[in-house]
Amino acid sequence: MKVKKSIKRNPSAGEKDRLGEIYRKAAKIIFEKGYDATSMNDIAAAVGMTKAGIYHYIEGKQDLLFAINSFGLDRLNNKVIEPARQIEDPEERLRTIVVSHAKLITEVSGHITILIDEVAGLAPAQRRAIDKRRRAYLDFLRSTLRELKDQGKLRDIDITVASFSIFGMLLWLSRWFRAGGRLTSDEIAQDILKIVVNGFLINESPSPNQPQS
Amino acid sequence: MKVKKSIKRNPSAGEKDRLGEIYRKAAKIIFEKGYDATSMNDIAAAVGMTKAGIYHYIEGKQDLLFAINSFGLDRLNNKVIEPARQIEDPEERLRTIVVSHAKLITEVSGHITILIDEVAGLAPAQRRAIDKRRRAYLDFLRSTLRELKDQGKLRDIDITVASFSIFGMLLWLSRWFRAGGRLTSDEIAQDILKIVVNGFLINESPSPNQPQS
Repeated sequence: MKVKKSIKRNPSAGEKDRLGEIYRKAAKIIFEKGYDATSMNDIAAAVGMTKAGIYHYIEGKQDLLFAINSFGLDRLNNKVIEPARQIEDPEERLRTIVVSHAKLITEVSGHITILIDEVAGLAPAQRRAIDKRRRAYLDFLRSTLRELKDQGKLRDIDITVASFSIFGMLLWLSRWFRAGGRLTSDEIAQDILKIVVNGFLINESPSPNQPQS
Repeated sequence: MKVKKSIKRNPSAGEKDRLGEIYRKAAKIIFEKGYDATSMNDIAAAVGMTKAGIYHYIEGKQDLLFAINSFGLDRLNNKVIEPARQIEDPEERLRTIVVSHAKLITEVSGHITILIDEVAGLAPAQRRAIDKRRRAYLDFLRSTLRELKDQGKLRDIDITVASFSIFGMLLWLSRWFRAGGRLTSDEIAQDILKIVVNGFLINESPSPNQPQS
């Protein structure tokens, strides 16, 4: 039975943390079991709450899926897109996109990123809203690559292939990275940056080997 | 109700084609609706058969999911892994893996490749079998990169990051490539090859710009 209580519009900082925690744990169990096979009971157990407790935060499974996707895109906006938009030089902007998105996935998002495939479970209007935000990110990356091409800095690679190849490398991270494993988040971000700088750009910029600040 | 008739062990050539067709169409509908939300009726409708007709070929939805995954891995083995295994030079082997896998995804597999994420629907023994075959492919790519590193030809990139980044670019193809679109399968494969050659390898081999034979 669906409890009619919406997600609060202006959650406090503590509630925001709690929501982020719910989203991350819910994303993990949904990834492991599949969206349809995951019950609200499973989610409550994964989050360590009672079913009644979790209905305090979310209205139902579909709303939860939408909320997780929106949360992931909010993070992407705050940590990747907005900082990169401030950067005028397209090469510097591309570097910022690659490093900050790689770190977002390994440090924060994890299974939330994987759930971008679960859009089939969304209501049509929810799906359109998510698709629109994702397309805006793709357009942002494409226009950055277009500027690099106009400056003669992009290798002779189609911009569509280039942008999806960068996305592929970044998004795949969410499937293989294990927190606490041999590789740190920084090491991985710097390696992917090297691949992008050498694989996509013509001007041999100094190889990004310096330690992270 | 589940009809107790197994997939024939030695299908004729015509039946093999029919099975490949069923797998491709079933993979597409499963991707669009999600595995759990897809019924055998949906699959029969997508394939253009009666439900009784489709039970001639498959035993049930879980067996179908396993069969689709196995079919995709058989193709990968025949079209990518086995040809590449014959090649002694690791750089040439890497080029063959990248181009033949890119072409396999765009020309043949499409949604079958995407379904590698639907392993949650498999029985544990089926999942282990699929995981084992995938790990063998990963190991094959890793050992190729290891040989390149030993020859001093790999850039200073961790082999784990390098192999998953190559997989990410290739597997993401299945999500964005549209048959009959602006880009041909060949153009995409050659662009991805350029990215890999420049992004991962040190020795500047001649850029692969010649037309496909």
